[in-house]
Amino acid sequence: MRAIAGTPDELRLRALRGLPAIVPGDDLAALLAHAANDAGVRLSGGVLVVCQKVVSKAEGRIVTLSNVTPSDPARRIATEDGKDPRHIEVILRETARIVRRGPGVLICETKHGFVCANAGVDLSNAPGEDVAVLLPDDPDASARRLRAALAVPGGEPLAVIVSDTFGRPFREGLVDVALGCAGIAPIDDLRGEKDLVGRTLSVTAMASADQLAAAAGLLMVKDSGTPAVWIEGVAPRGDGDARALLRRRESDLFR
Amino acid sequence: MRAIAGTPDELRLRALRGLPAIVPGDDLAALLAHAANDAGVRLSGGVLVVCQKVVSKAEGRIVTLSNVTPSDPARRIATEDGKDPRHIEVILRETARIVRRGPGVLICETKHGFVCANAGVDLSNAPGEDVAVLLPDDPDASARRLRAALAVPGGEPLAVIVSDTFGRPFREGLVDVALGCAGIAPIDDLRGEKDLVGRTLSVTAMASADQLAAAAGLLMVKDSGTPAVWIEGVAPRGDGDARALLRRRESDLFR
Repeated sequence: MRAIAGTPDELRLRALRGLPAIVPGDDLAALLAHAANDAGVRLSGGVLVVCQKVVSKAEGRIVTLSNVTPSDPARRIATEDGKDPRHIEVILRETARIVRRGPGVLICETKHGFVCANAGVDLSNAPGEDVAVLLPDDPDASARRLRAALAVPGGEPLAVIVSDTFGRPFREGLVDVALGCAGIAPIDDLRGEKDLVGRTLSVTAMASADQLAAAAGLLMVKDSGTPAVWIEGVAPRGDGDARALLRRRESDLFR
Repeated sequence: MRAIAGTPDELRLRALRGLPAIVPGDDLAALLAHAANDAGVRLSGGVLVVCQKVVSKAEGRIVTLSNVTPSDPARRIATEDGKDPRHIEVILRETARIVRRGPGVLICETKHGFVCANAGVDLSNAPGEDVAVLLPDDPDASARRLRAALAVPGGEPLAVIVSDTFGRPFREGLVDVALGCAGIAPIDDLRGEKDLVGRTLSVTAMASADQLAAAAGLLMVKDSGTPAVWIEGVAPRGDGDARALLRRRESDLFR
């Protein structure tokens, strides 16, 4: 399934800013629609990339650390790594399996199947010093809800991607990836198409949703107050969960 | 070191097309300058992302398979995987170390230090059925040469990124990454900066060059005849080799 109509000549990315600090229960779609309006953006026929943190906060995926009683495994890891045992406890609760442990680093497979540091549990820029922000419970469902709420009457369909910033093996630095998506095929599947000399491209399936998340990440510089980016020039096609981007453990050479 | 000046409000990506099929010895910079001119793009104050394949071809990094005599190890792998032993031989010559072998898959660490399938040796869309295109010998040097040749008199500095399409562990689908860069810090290092509540961001170093490559990749859909993309709205800052994006084997939990 193709993710993007045709081959675009030009893409334009626009930062949506001015959202208030998000708290549980906020109507994130309404706040995003307002920010889009302020930026002169019509949410029609493009892709809205929304950072995970505002989605999680609006959905109440926040844990107050003072309410957390660390388990023995959490205490042991925290002692070894010089971390807050309550933070480790929250990480372990989100973790299906620890994939690797390094010095001060926990690479976890989350219950959703994401492989990332600390199971995506983040302390930075939370609304207080003692809270942890978890990944959304179902980021694809989050994207679908936002998409339904943001559709412009009479407009072209839009796609919504919920993004987060992950490290990766082999390469330094973080990149943004798609945790959830709606209204676009997460993988732009060119398999079966021909290349310029007529040979069938056998293995080319681009992770378009991740590329869109990475592009948006250029405008979402950490904590710059840009929780969402509108991408126009790509007419989204297809549909599917970002879950399709998760390689199954059995076919992963690195787990 | 920061890679991008300020926090941009808007990015614009424009496809550069119309290059002829590139052959060894072509003046790629001149052809890119011509394509930019045709697209009405002034190569000033932005980032030019150029796909590896045209760089490699212009630099003559092409091997005619009929001239290749496979070694015994290449013959063995080719037999086991049902591949062309000459292709495997070229891959092995580019490989410092095989990181993983799966069914029909060779994940190699190249002599440069890239970890990717087939050491980046590609058969598809080569200028004949029996040639392999290798990665540039020194993609950072390739980027520096293009940057020097493309500088517009009186213009703002530009950055050049040489990109390729890689798979990755844990996630399905391919993404574009930076093999080489010039005129921009490959990693946007936020370490030491404060987040919105004044806490120091201890681990945030964004792989900006990879994010720029991924963004450009949205317009470079495989073999669509878009070998380069101009990104404006990011004023490149700093400098450094994309080599800095390569995690050292000793600090990689997955090698």
